[in-house]
Amino acid sequence: MFESAEIDHELSKSEYTRAVEEVRHALLDAQQRLLDESKQAVLVVIAGLDGGGKGETVQEINSWLDPRHVRTVAFGAPSDEERERPPLWRYWRMLPPKGKVGIFFDSWYEPPLHGRAYGNWGQAQFDRAIERASRFERMLANEGFVLLKLWFHLAKAQQRKRLRELEKDKLTRWRVTDEDWRRFEHYDALVDTAKRALRLSSTEYAPWIVVPGRDERYRSLVVARGLLDAMVNDDVAAPPADTPLHPVPAIDGQNVLRALDQGEPMPKDEYKIELERWQGTLARLVRRSAFRKRSLVIVFEGMDAAGKGGAIRRFAAALDPRLYTLVPIAAPTDEERARPYLWRFWRHLPRKGNAVVFDRSWYGRVLVERVEGFCTTSDWMRAYSEINDFEEQMVEHGAVIVKLWLQIDPDEQLRRFRERETEVTKRYKIGPEDWRNREKWPAYENAVADMVDRTSTELAPWTLIAANDKNRARVTVLRTICERLEAALEDD
Amino acid sequence: MFESAEIDHELSKSEYTRAVEEVRHALLDAQQRLLDESKQAVLVVIAGLDGGGKGETVQEINSWLDPRHVRTVAFGAPSDEERERPPLWRYWRMLPPKGKVGIFFDSWYEPPLHGRAYGNWGQAQFDRAIERASRFERMLANEGFVLLKLWFHLAKAQQRKRLRELEKDKLTRWRVTDEDWRRFEHYDALVDTAKRALRLSSTEYAPWIVVPGRDERYRSLVVARGLLDAMVNDDVAAPPADTPLHPVPAIDGQNVLRALDQGEPMPKDEYKIELERWQGTLARLVRRSAFRKRSLVIVFEGMDAAGKGGAIRRFAAALDPRLYTLVPIAAPTDEERARPYLWRFWRHLPRKGNAVVFDRSWYGRVLVERVEGFCTTSDWMRAYSEINDFEEQMVEHGAVIVKLWLQIDPDEQLRRFRERETEVTKRYKIGPEDWRNREKWPAYENAVADMVDRTSTELAPWTLIAANDKNRARVTVLRTICERLEAALEDD
Repeated sequence: MFESAEIDHELSKSEYTRAVEEVRHALLDAQQRLLDESKQAVLVVIAGLDGGGKGETVQEINSWLDPRHVRTVAFGAPSDEERERPPLWRYWRMLPPKGKVGIFFDSWYEPPLHGRAYGNWGQAQFDRAIERASRFERMLANEGFVLLKLWFHLAKAQQRKRLRELEKDKLTRWRVTDEDWRRFEHYDALVDTAKRALRLSSTEYAPWIVVPGRDERYRSLVVARGLLDAMVNDDVAAPPADTPLHPVPAIDGQNVLRALDQGEPMPKDEYKIELERWQGTLARLVRRSAFRKRSLVIVFEGMDAAGKGGAIRRFAAALDPRLYTLVPIAAPTDEERARPYLWRFWRHLPRKGNAVVFDRSWYGRVLVERVEGFCTTSDWMRAYSEINDFEEQMVEHGAVIVKLWLQIDPDEQLRRFRERETEVTKRYKIGPEDWRNREKWPAYENAVADMVDRTSTELAPWTLIAANDKNRARVTVLRTICERLEAALEDD
Repeated sequence: MFESAEIDHELSKSEYTRAVEEVRHALLDAQQRLLDESKQAVLVVIAGLDGGGKGETVQEINSWLDPRHVRTVAFGAPSDEERERPPLWRYWRMLPPKGKVGIFFDSWYEPPLHGRAYGNWGQAQFDRAIERASRFERMLANEGFVLLKLWFHLAKAQQRKRLRELEKDKLTRWRVTDEDWRRFEHYDALVDTAKRALRLSSTEYAPWIVVPGRDERYRSLVVARGLLDAMVNDDVAAPPADTPLHPVPAIDGQNVLRALDQGEPMPKDEYKIELERWQGTLARLVRRSAFRKRSLVIVFEGMDAAGKGGAIRRFAAALDPRLYTLVPIAAPTDEERARPYLWRFWRHLPRKGNAVVFDRSWYGRVLVERVEGFCTTSDWMRAYSEINDFEEQMVEHGAVIVKLWLQIDPDEQLRRFRERETEVTKRYKIGPEDWRNREKWPAYENAVADMVDRTSTELAPWTLIAANDKNRARVTVLRTICERLEAALEDD
């Protein structure tokens, strides 16, 4: 895997100068085109051995690019805000927008590589992290990212020599630390680990490129050419051709929504008692010390006029407003549109001890976007596993996810629409779009059924709530949240 | 100041129910209008005594509002990312966009109030913080914020009684801590401090409203009415009438830019030596351990084609790309447009030990926006002190600010424009807008002269750089940065 990189590569100064001249022009052109089209972003992942020239090479390449459209990020130790979110959060927040280039030092490969080679990570933990990285990269590629992953390599003897050279020179001595030598002793372990990582995570859309680290001219040109390919080759991250494969709709017309028993209306007296009871329970649950190590993520979805707003208000009334944030999902901002569709949700993940309520959510991808044809079949088909991955990361990091689908039947919706049209204070809640959506009821029902089948997981199950009766629905929402949260806190 | 709040206020249940019904409808209407117009944001600052009902009241008011357009933030202890920026950064990052309501617990009043009443802040430090808060609020008001500042008050006997009541009730006992009683012993000190704070920072555009904290019905209605006023009263934050006052232009046509000696071109040999020398110096300076407690903020401004890009590349070539971020200022995103003009710069302030380079900057307000008439005379006139305040906060927090104006004369600009038009690789750098700007040369010169006079401060001076000769300019840029940074690090 590293054979070609360990032989001696060299370029004469004149060959190099000529080649650089050429590649620089091409890079600037490609960068400008990338920006003009703004359809793709390029993400360069930097990894490799100490002394392999990672920093110097990026510095050199940066000086050939238009630096206004490149963002280099070194992640280093996570901040406390980062530690309180799933591990990938820090990379998500720094994703470049379409049209730009991001260069990431210390990427998501750093923890598994170092954990396995120098620490106490087992093989399974390592493989799982690499698999997660691959899934993340596949999603990025599908969302318009071109990924270039660079491994800066040195043979063992080359690394020893390089570290010694750096130590000898007064100007570079500071760069070699005891830590570097300690790592050098684990050269074989790291290189073996890297081989495995590269093998498992090299894909056609996010290949690793091994950069021979010894000769600075040679390695700069390798990186420049790789970057140029990434910027000009439109095929690299071309989304796969649209798939004709999609779930088989129910043949008998029956589905989980129609099968839902709407039950009897809850009498007002009972409602008052139950509401107060569960609001009190919720208020007490979030005050438990165990919640300080947890977070609560609530997703509200439902047909138009299903009563999401009213249910959210009953939830909010139970909680100290300092503990939760409500995120209403409307049209994305332009900063959001320039990034993968999950970005706008990642940015709102709560810190520990806090709750976030999404009024509509990432499930828009497999509901409205699917039904309205805003994305391809491939896009929403892959979204199920992307969403499951997203939620898995949250849950593993201590979040309790409660996903609520509020279900009314078509007659009840009609009644509520008409009521909204006649009542002055509710008129702003209804528009032509609601009537248009209503006509697509069967398509939405079908999409919801698939969503439930494919994303109701053991980690983050869906709860379908009969919502024809608002009282019963509101109490059920609160009770569901309480029960899920309590079960999680009891586990701790 | 608190007299009216200390007498007993009470509302019967029926009076209250009637009043609430009325105010709720009005609040929802007002909120919808605020959102539809999206010209203003409402910011509610919550302060006051423990037991005064801050949390409960906000919770109640929130349940009357459309919660999708309200964001409540409790700041608590700053995160490490926050501690590495000036104190106001954490408030800036949470500013609501136009059309929305933000509710801030633990605002910028918390540190001075507690510092003075319970800690060891002196009177001067306290007054200065309050004055700074006022200046911040004036800027916010001018930028379309309606500010509502609420002080929840209790007489001393009322507070004692309230804390005891809370302690007696099993359900609320957890809310009273030893810390609360410790604070209660300092009741007089806190109230005296608050009086001073309220007096110094009550203005017509950001008045304090004292909320009597004893009766929960009464206080909720006071807050609701205050909030309603803030949302519907278009006059509250109406920007002052445009001022006719502006700086007197030079009467003899002379100005700092024309007076600048362009000097002799720097020979290529000398350039090479000097460039390398200062690049090396810069690389060494940022590696000093003293820099880890500092940050570096560099502002590049200049006429079109003055060579900012080339100078920035020479700077970048000296530095490890992990240490700096380049922020090119182009058209604002919609998230940026929905907030005060300085927001987009605040969000890029670097952490300690890092540098940020602004390729054009907040000075756009007093340059292009002034010259093109994108803002009123009042807007750019107030910008000088807003900018000085902004920079003062950075410098006090350890930033070294280097502001560079690259100056070419009109003939040199013409030569460069023509060169850009003929060279294929430079053609993307020139467009009709550049030619249009060139026609306004005298107006820009005038704006630059005023900018330098009004914002070249002892904390953050401007350096005017003769840039007809690119070599000399690049070396001077690097030398200036090095000298300013070195002086700051020596001071430590």
